[in-house]
Amino acid sequence: MLDHFTAPTRRDLLRVIGKVGGGAALYQTMTVLGHAAESHFTGPPQLTGARPGASVLVIGAGLAGMLAAYELTKAGYKVQILELQGRAGGRNMTLRGGDTVNELGSVQKVGFAPGNYLNPGPWRIPYHHRTVLHYCKELGVALEPFMQSNHNAFIHRKTAFGGKPQRYRDLTIDFKGHVSELLGKALNAGALDAAVTPEDKARLLEAMRSWGVLDKNMTYGKSEKVGEQRGWERPPGGGVNGAPIPNDPFGLSETLDSKIWDQLGFFAEHAMQTSMFQAKGGMDRIGKAFQARVGKTIRFNTRITKIAQDEKGVTASWTDAITGAAGETKADWMVCTIPASILGQIDVQIADTKKAALKALPYGNSVKIGLEMKRRFWETEDAIYGGSSFTDQAIGLVSYPGHGCFSDGPAVLLGAYPFGVGAYVLAGMTPERRIQAALDQGAVFHPAHYKAEFSNGASLAWSRMPWILGCCATWTEESRAAHYQNLVSMDGRIVLAGEHCSYYGCWQEGALLSSLDAITRLHQRALAG
Amino acid sequence: MLDHFTAPTRRDLLRVIGKVGGGAALYQTMTVLGHAAESHFTGPPQLTGARPGASVLVIGAGLAGMLAAYELTKAGYKVQILELQGRAGGRNMTLRGGDTVNELGSVQKVGFAPGNYLNPGPWRIPYHHRTVLHYCKELGVALEPFMQSNHNAFIHRKTAFGGKPQRYRDLTIDFKGHVSELLGKALNAGALDAAVTPEDKARLLEAMRSWGVLDKNMTYGKSEKVGEQRGWERPPGGGVNGAPIPNDPFGLSETLDSKIWDQLGFFAEHAMQTSMFQAKGGMDRIGKAFQARVGKTIRFNTRITKIAQDEKGVTASWTDAITGAAGETKADWMVCTIPASILGQIDVQIADTKKAALKALPYGNSVKIGLEMKRRFWETEDAIYGGSSFTDQAIGLVSYPGHGCFSDGPAVLLGAYPFGVGAYVLAGMTPERRIQAALDQGAVFHPAHYKAEFSNGASLAWSRMPWILGCCATWTEESRAAHYQNLVSMDGRIVLAGEHCSYYGCWQEGALLSSLDAITRLHQRALAG
Repeated sequence: MLDHFTAPTRRDLLRVIGKVGGGAALYQTMTVLGHAAESHFTGPPQLTGARPGASVLVIGAGLAGMLAAYELTKAGYKVQILELQGRAGGRNMTLRGGDTVNELGSVQKVGFAPGNYLNPGPWRIPYHHRTVLHYCKELGVALEPFMQSNHNAFIHRKTAFGGKPQRYRDLTIDFKGHVSELLGKALNAGALDAAVTPEDKARLLEAMRSWGVLDKNMTYGKSEKVGEQRGWERPPGGGVNGAPIPNDPFGLSETLDSKIWDQLGFFAEHAMQTSMFQAKGGMDRIGKAFQARVGKTIRFNTRITKIAQDEKGVTASWTDAITGAAGETKADWMVCTIPASILGQIDVQIADTKKAALKALPYGNSVKIGLEMKRRFWETEDAIYGGSSFTDQAIGLVSYPGHGCFSDGPAVLLGAYPFGVGAYVLAGMTPERRIQAALDQGAVFHPAHYKAEFSNGASLAWSRMPWILGCCATWTEESRAAHYQNLVSMDGRIVLAGEHCSYYGCWQEGALLSSLDAITRLHQRALAG
Repeated sequence: MLDHFTAPTRRDLLRVIGKVGGGAALYQTMTVLGHAAESHFTGPPQLTGARPGASVLVIGAGLAGMLAAYELTKAGYKVQILELQGRAGGRNMTLRGGDTVNELGSVQKVGFAPGNYLNPGPWRIPYHHRTVLHYCKELGVALEPFMQSNHNAFIHRKTAFGGKPQRYRDLTIDFKGHVSELLGKALNAGALDAAVTPEDKARLLEAMRSWGVLDKNMTYGKSEKVGEQRGWERPPGGGVNGAPIPNDPFGLSETLDSKIWDQLGFFAEHAMQTSMFQAKGGMDRIGKAFQARVGKTIRFNTRITKIAQDEKGVTASWTDAITGAAGETKADWMVCTIPASILGQIDVQIADTKKAALKALPYGNSVKIGLEMKRRFWETEDAIYGGSSFTDQAIGLVSYPGHGCFSDGPAVLLGAYPFGVGAYVLAGMTPERRIQAALDQGAVFHPAHYKAEFSNGASLAWSRMPWILGCCATWTEESRAAHYQNLVSMDGRIVLAGEHCSYYGCWQEGALLSSLDAITRLHQRALAG
């Protein structure tokens, strides 16, 4: 991700910052580098002392825009937000029964039962997303555990195991068993004697035996000990027939067929690690909480047609999306959070390098499909509570609700969440056909119940949402190197913000961190005059 | 765990059962083998048609005893429970402010703030403990996710990293990185060409590159890609300084110093896998829920002094632990759930082989220490929400509450949970010294706050609880082979039950499964006459 210059060392950075910014900047930077290795976030920005009467116009009432408005208001600025939609929150949204999904070319009415929901945008918050977690706390948004990992969920590959899904547990246990056996074999054959010390070789052999659950011949296979990880043909029980019977591990080739390392890698990603959280009742509680603070400053249904600036201030020209009336809003400064995919189509008075950056930044696509089932058969029949089953079909995965486990009545599955090709395949379908495809494909995991228990569904294809035309910014190394700094630099009186202006693309954390960085620079510029 | 005979194959079992038990038994067994591979449990026992007036005396109001009473009452039996303590639940208990811990030699008053608690016995329920989950649902016990795995918690080894704890995340990522690099090296050197096919070799190389995050030379080391799993010196951010800076992985030798495979193996155990649950508000909600159904049948404070039987029935002689009055209770049959550690000391009319089994069954020890801290500094300072930090000191681990995350005010840490030597070391201390030891040792993880934020603590050493003198039964292969079937067999009119009569020792699931097996056999015997 760091691509346009060679990463300075920590010491290099401190030396430069000490020279340029003096002691206070040095201290602040050391704090960031030293204590906040989990996050850029070290607390809300301490912006104070705005010039009397100074004003900021914020374009977009997503999380980045509302956070900017919230903090700039606290700093003393007069803030107004202009928002295209009739709602706040941007991609932070939750679909519930009665809601409407307006895509290009289709309208869906959501039919979920009361209390059920789908988060079509962000749906999970890792422990290290300190900015999101901070503002959830500050704004009173209740969080609950997001059940990310589930050993008992399924992995499906069309060409593995004759298309029969297998438990994540079985495949991961077998993978490490076979890897351990092979590395043990290589070590014992002396094949790595040049690479490791005799002491490390001995410890590696111990590690492989223990981690891989190998037998005394350093072989992986059916055994009581393996059963204690992999589960059983007949599990341990009580009384006279309590003795467990182990089952047969998969062979090396079968295990490799599953490409299980893809999932192991997925769960190893920093952003996918446990612990993880979700907003209780739906992710839009976060947007709603910001709206509760800055809602009065939002003008909804306001379509920006032009953005201009001069040495005195900024001017946004707009039309009211309901009445068609035209208008202008002026301010001293602007934070513009319109996604690059849309902003690139608007007449904006910014440097050509920034325009080039907007045009060079592609947006990825993603589709989410919610399937309301009449009951939680994945819990009662398959002992799957939360987590995801993965497939190489277009739907990508089926994810099970981790909230409300053990409850009766209908529940909403995430029936599809692909990026890339699968997302475009599903986005190209009508909403009705998407649901059918999700049912057809997801049934591979739960063939006896998936279609029988289906009640209703809703979907959202981000490439067809007119106000963004994509899911989120997908910088490449090349585009990042050529354009990122041009995009995020302050341009006269205008600064851009949003996940596309961060190295945390596609995450709420990126939108918030970008916003904090943007308003901090804007405030410095405004104070400097 | 299966040790006293060679495990029959599934087909062997079905053939034998088909011969002995006929079609119905065969069907039932196939159901168990086929559909309940996660559990022996296939639903509550369908016990009906008890002989009119038939009675069962249950000794012990722990989970096994109360479940027996609950189901036998439904079957039509007249049931009475005799319980030594003044409370029900047995090891299913929760300590809250105002509670008293009565160990041999000490009395503690628990000082936790309202709402806080420690589960000194069972504290987590894996997804495959179908019996526990079933009765929680049937009895209305609310469950919530137990946050089992936490990449951001610490691993501490006295002799690794100069005694400095490291993040589980960093060690696990580095372990798989080094293992991948070494296996890749061995594969590329042809050292495993005799062991794997060329196709599997190619796939293994792909797997190692992907899973281990190796570079194009198949080497593991500092890189952006590794940072995306291992975290960062400076994490990705927003705006102009958003570029992340990766940190330095540990070398092979350092990584091996951590013995991280111990923790990887721990989390791979079937009983430790996700998903996992806890009873909302404290594990004793389960015992209380059973008590709500069978409480009227319990005679508390009843110390059994003798158990006798003849061809007509059973007789329990007892003294009232409060008044000292002696008494006798008679019934047709008995389910005795007194722990082996205690039952072996009572005059019981059972076969010598059963007595020998009781004496041959050692109980393990364990200690839990709850430390109430004034605030959740592990969340605010270390971004640790739930999960456990592990150490090779006597305390074994520090476990963080997964409920109430992000809340203000005091919270209770599990400050120690050792088995084996560490448990005996702590059990040998006074409660006050245990707390001090837990603070001294746990401070290694949170040196700046652990002692400063401490408010009060409570502990429970199972070896010092007079009604069990240990934590749970720890069968060895040898003792299991020699004694298990003798212990669980029905002896005249008496059958034993409890986790010690199961292959799921130390788990509530074992106690419940044992009870179901025991009462099913008792009912069959009673109907047979």
